[in-house]
This record gives sequence, C-alpha cells and structure tokens, in this order.
Amino acid sequence: MEPDNVRIVVLGAGSWGTVFANVIADAADLAREEDPGRPAVDVVLWGRRSSVVDAVNDKHENPDYFPGLALNPRLRATTDATGAVAGADVVVLAVPSQSLRDNLAAWKPHLREDAVVVSLMKGVELGTRMRVSEIITEVLECSSERVAAVSGPNLAREIAERQPATAVVACPHEVTAVRLQKLFKSTYFRPYTSTDLVGVEVGGAMKNVIALAVGVAEGMGFKDNTKASLITRGLAETTRLAVALGADEHTLSGLAGMGDLVATCSSPLSRNRTFGEKLGAGMTLDEVVAQTKQTAEGVKSSESVLGLGWAHGVDMPITESVVKMMHHDLSPAEALVGFMSRSTKPERYGV
Amino acid sequence: MEPDNVRIVVLGAGSWGTVFANVIADAADLAREEDPGRPAVDVVLWGRRSSVVDAVNDKHENPDYFPGLALNPRLRATTDATGAVAGADVVVLAVPSQSLRDNLAAWKPHLREDAVVVSLMKGVELGTRMRVSEIITEVLECSSERVAAVSGPNLAREIAERQPATAVVACPHEVTAVRLQKLFKSTYFRPYTSTDLVGVEVGGAMKNVIALAVGVAEGMGFKDNTKASLITRGLAETTRLAVALGADEHTLSGLAGMGDLVATCSSPLSRNRTFGEKLGAGMTLDEVVAQTKQTAEGVKSSESVLGLGWAHGVDMPITESVVKMMHHDLSPAEALVGFMSRSTKPERYGV
Repeated sequence: MEPDNVRIVVLGAGSWGTVFANVIADAADLAREEDPGRPAVDVVLWGRRSSVVDAVNDKHENPDYFPGLALNPRLRATTDATGAVAGADVVVLAVPSQSLRDNLAAWKPHLREDAVVVSLMKGVELGTRMRVSEIITEVLECSSERVAAVSGPNLAREIAERQPATAVVACPHEVTAVRLQKLFKSTYFRPYTSTDLVGVEVGGAMKNVIALAVGVAEGMGFKDNTKASLITRGLAETTRLAVALGADEHTLSGLAGMGDLVATCSSPLSRNRTFGEKLGAGMTLDEVVAQTKQTAEGVKSSESVLGLGWAHGVDMPITESVVKMMHHDLSPAEALVGFMSRSTKPERYGV
Repeated sequence: MEPDNVRIVVLGAGSWGTVFANVIADAADLAREEDPGRPAVDVVLWGRRSSVVDAVNDKHENPDYFPGLALNPRLRATTDATGAVAGADVVVLAVPSQSLRDNLAAWKPHLREDAVVVSLMKGVELGTRMRVSEIITEVLECSSERVAAVSGPNLAREIAERQPATAVVACPHEVTAVRLQKLFKSTYFRPYTSTDLVGVEVGGAMKNVIALAVGVAEGMGFKDNTKASLITRGLAETTRLAVALGADEHTLSGLAGMGDLVATCSSPLSRNRTFGEKLGAGMTLDEVVAQTKQTAEGVKSSESVLGLGWAHGVDMPITESVVKMMHHDLSPAEALVGFMSRSTKPERYGV
C-alpha cells in the first residue's frame, strides 16, 4: 500500500454498511479512471461474523443480505475492527444506534486523532435523546467539525443494484463535506454537500415515525391523497423540530428530509411502513409485534423524538398520534378522527 | 332562497369540478350541523352538456367520470352559465386552462363586482406564459385580492370516494382565504390557508412536468430511490422558479407543492406519469402521442415553464430534460446520463 493512499473503513457489514462500502469502491474506480494521478482509495468493511467477511473477500458478495449480487472485487473485509480502524483516514459507522456508544468507546484508543467520522446511522439514543453525531463527539471528545452524516433516498437494495440515487453528505466543516463528496461519488450515486448535520440527522430520525403513520393509513385502505397529506404534514413537523434544534429548514426540503421520507413511504421494503400497515389493517399491536422479527425503528424512536419536541415546545400531532397508537392503545380510527378534526390553521406556523 | 344564503357556482363539470362542487355541498351540511344558525350555502355546478347536468340533478351522479358514485343530493347543476354566475358570491373555475380567457370574457358582464374568484386550474397559458390568476385579473380587470386558488394532493377520484385529504386555499387577502376555508372544510377535506397565490400556482404548473420525468424513470425500470431523488430535485427547481416569480419558498414545501407532487407521482391515475412511463419503456414519442387521447398537460406546459425559468435566470435541469425529450428527440437514456453527470454541487443553491 502506498503511503498516499486514502484509507477508509466501514464499520458494520449489515445491509447498508455493505452497500455503502461498495459505493465507495465503485467511486474509487471512477475517480482513478477520470484522473489516474489521484491517490488510490482502500476500502475495508468490518463485520463481526467471519462467514460474511470470508464471502466478501472470496466471492465478492454478502450472502446474508444480497445473495448473488456482485460486489466490487476491490472491496476487502475483515473481522479485526481494531486493525481496520487504526490508520484509517475516514471511519464510516453503520452499527445499530443503541450499541454505538459502547462500540465507539472500544474503538476510540485506535482511532487517529484527525480521522473523519461519518455516520450512516439513523435514530435518537433512548434515554439520552442524543443524535448520533452528539454521541460521537461526546465519546470521542472531538469537535463536530470532524463528524459527518450521509443520508437521502437510499433504499439499500436499489443502490446495491446500482440504480441511480442521490444523497446528502453533511459536515459542519464544508471542506470536509466536499472531500467526502468526491470519495463517495460514483456513476450511479450522486452526493450533494451540506453543512447542516443537525437537519440531516433529524430528518433521518423522524422519517421512520412518519412512515409508521403512512403505513397505518395504507392499512386502513386510504390512498395517495391521504398518504401525500401525511407525508407533507409529517415533514412540516419534522422541520419544526429540526429548526428548534438548530437546523436549517431547507435541509428538510432536501434529499435527507423529503427525499428519504418519500422513498421510505413509497417502498414496500420499509419495515416501518409494513409495521404500520398491519396495525391499520386491524391487527392488534401485540399481534404485529409477534409477527415482526426485528422491531421497527420508529416504534422506539417515536417516544424519543416526541420527548425532544415537548422539551422544545414543538407541536407534533402526527408523532403524538404514532406514540399513542404504539404505546397507549389508541386505535387507528381514533387517531384519524383526531387528526382531521384539529382546528383549521394557516398552512405554515411554528417555524 | 333566503337573501342571506351564500351562493357558490362551480364552472366546469369535469372530473375535478364535479368533485369539488360535491366537497362544498358536503362542507355546507357539516357547517349547518355544527351551527344551525349559519347562513345556508347553495352550490350550483355548471356543465356544457345537458346529459351530465340532468344526471347530477336527477340521479345525483356524474356518469361521465364517476358512474355509480353518489353525489350530495343538495348539489344542483345547470347548463345556464350566465344565470349561475349572476348573483354568485363565489365563482369557482374548473375549465380547461387554454380556454379560460375566452370563457371568462363571456361571463364577465354577469359577474358581481365583489364576487370572489377561485381557480382549481393548473398550468401556464401558452404564448403569454401567464398563470391562471394573472389571466383572471387581466380579463376581469380586478385586484388579485379577489382571486384565490385551491391546490394540494387532490386526486379527484379519491376525494369523490370521500377519502381524507388536505389542501391549501391561497388568496392574497387573508380574510378571504379564511372565509373560503370555512366554506370548503368537510369531514374528509381539510383546507389550510395561505396568502401565497404565486407559490400555489407555480407548484401546480410544475408538478405535471416533474411527473413526466418520474414516469420516464419508472418506465426505464428505476425504483423508489431514483423516483424520490427526481421528486426532491424537481421540487428544488420548482422552488427556485417560484421564488424568482415572487413566491414564498415555504409554499412549495407544503401541500400545494410537495403534497400535490408526491400524490401525482405516486398515483397510477396520473396521465402525465403514465405518458412518461411509456416513453421510458421504449416507445417513441409519436407512438405515445398516438396512444394518448388527451394530451398530457406537462408536455405542453414544460416549454412554457422552461421559458419562464430562462426569462428569470433559473437553473431547471429536469424541466430542460423533459422539454428535450418531449420536443427535441432526446432519448431517456441520454437524459439520465446528463442528469447524473452534472458537476457536483451543494444541495442548496439558487434560492
């Protein structure tokens, strides 16, 4: 390996971690094609299980998530997190939100002090109600200038199939955002830069909550007007919350806000939407939970984001309905009546 | 009829005119139920063809668009436009955009000077590139304070089925917007007020153009990430154009911008999306036109809105691609390459 090579490690060989590592490898190929003088990029994917790691190295596929789909042969994988983290210029995090804090504390001694940390993760930590970047800066005791997030309409399977997609790379340090944009840009993946980390993260945390509500409407038999209304008004309350937390409202009209929300709410692949759909179709909450292997993220995070909203005096009627349906036995029909009979309002308020 | 009654005429018994007249009749029932002391509302629907008008009056249905669907029995219809317009407090326009100017000139002598004129119409006049409200104020020689527009995620068939939906009622005179909101609010139709007539109209004109682009992507086999990316970046250029024309950018993040766009691009009922889909699937433009009875609105208006953009120095890459595909033989594959290989940018620029 030449000393000039850019070294990137992706931590977490789940569905999105695997696909994003593959995007970076494809991007590196494109960059060298466009300008052979550029430093090479080495991408390493860390996974816990050796069966997955071996498959990526030997067969260039991740059989757990995308059996048969060819990954870039330049992508390497390892089970040695410490070795992969040590010396990395860019550390990409794709582990479960609720285990991030402990993982990060263990990796911290090996991380370079000038490494850029990129979050692919969505959600708010239970209890602390902290966003992922807040956990990172707290655990690593670093400035948020070193922390970035990537988000957008990025259903993993479609990007694995190299379908055209766009995303936002957000970092408070704009030069870093532009540097990451170059590292991630491939023929099918088009990243835009932003400095609004807060907005990108709030958009990501809220979209699963809104997707639950849209799923419920779908399950009740409602169609495109109702769903588009919920998506639009859901984004309005997402924007109110984000602005209260210091975000730029425009971020929520962009790919990490509206874009991600629209893709999630349109896709049959979304776990949250599917969870809501079963509830709307008449199953009890217990029945849906029993049928769902992995808990839908929005069920947990709805309470955290509503708490954040309350703490900042933000009106969040859809999130409140979701919390009541998921945790306090409100029926979908009651939630609908509550939503449609609120006092009439100007479209824009509270931002 | 009591002298205090509010008299509303809906001009145009097409799909949306019929359904909106029915919304007003349902809203009147709800208002009287909530407060029996309120003045009654009389709604009259004007249609050109007596077969439709008779069916509305006698069978309470519009057999051309919604056979078998029960309209509110209080809704009356007439073929006499002059008589219906005379004395009306509120005149709702639902005629084809390109014939509005002539129709309005004919109705003008009969219109009360203080009547509020509400547009349900979308599009930009060919040649003049004027929005509907501009045509109205020009022909009626009146202030825009008397002109309103209603728009939102409002697929007519779903509202005919009384599925829950939301919309924006925009009028520069806020008191008028609130008055209309009360007249249009039913159990299933929830209008929000706005004073941004320009924003609401630009959102309506642009959504058909973006729906064409989304349809093309769909026809090429692309899925939810790609479509959500196009919808989001399409709304970004809609917003840039609207702001250049004097709109409030927030309107485009709302129901008449994002909401309408998302509903249209999700729905199999959209003519524009379907038109694009056939083109994306490999049919030639001539073949698609031959198969399409009614021209898709976005095919015509794409040139008008691009012209508006050029006149105001607005960057509109998706609209430009649509114009090239619809009028200059650019293939969908070439359009895609052009879109994905533009220079990388910050997400937000040009607003």
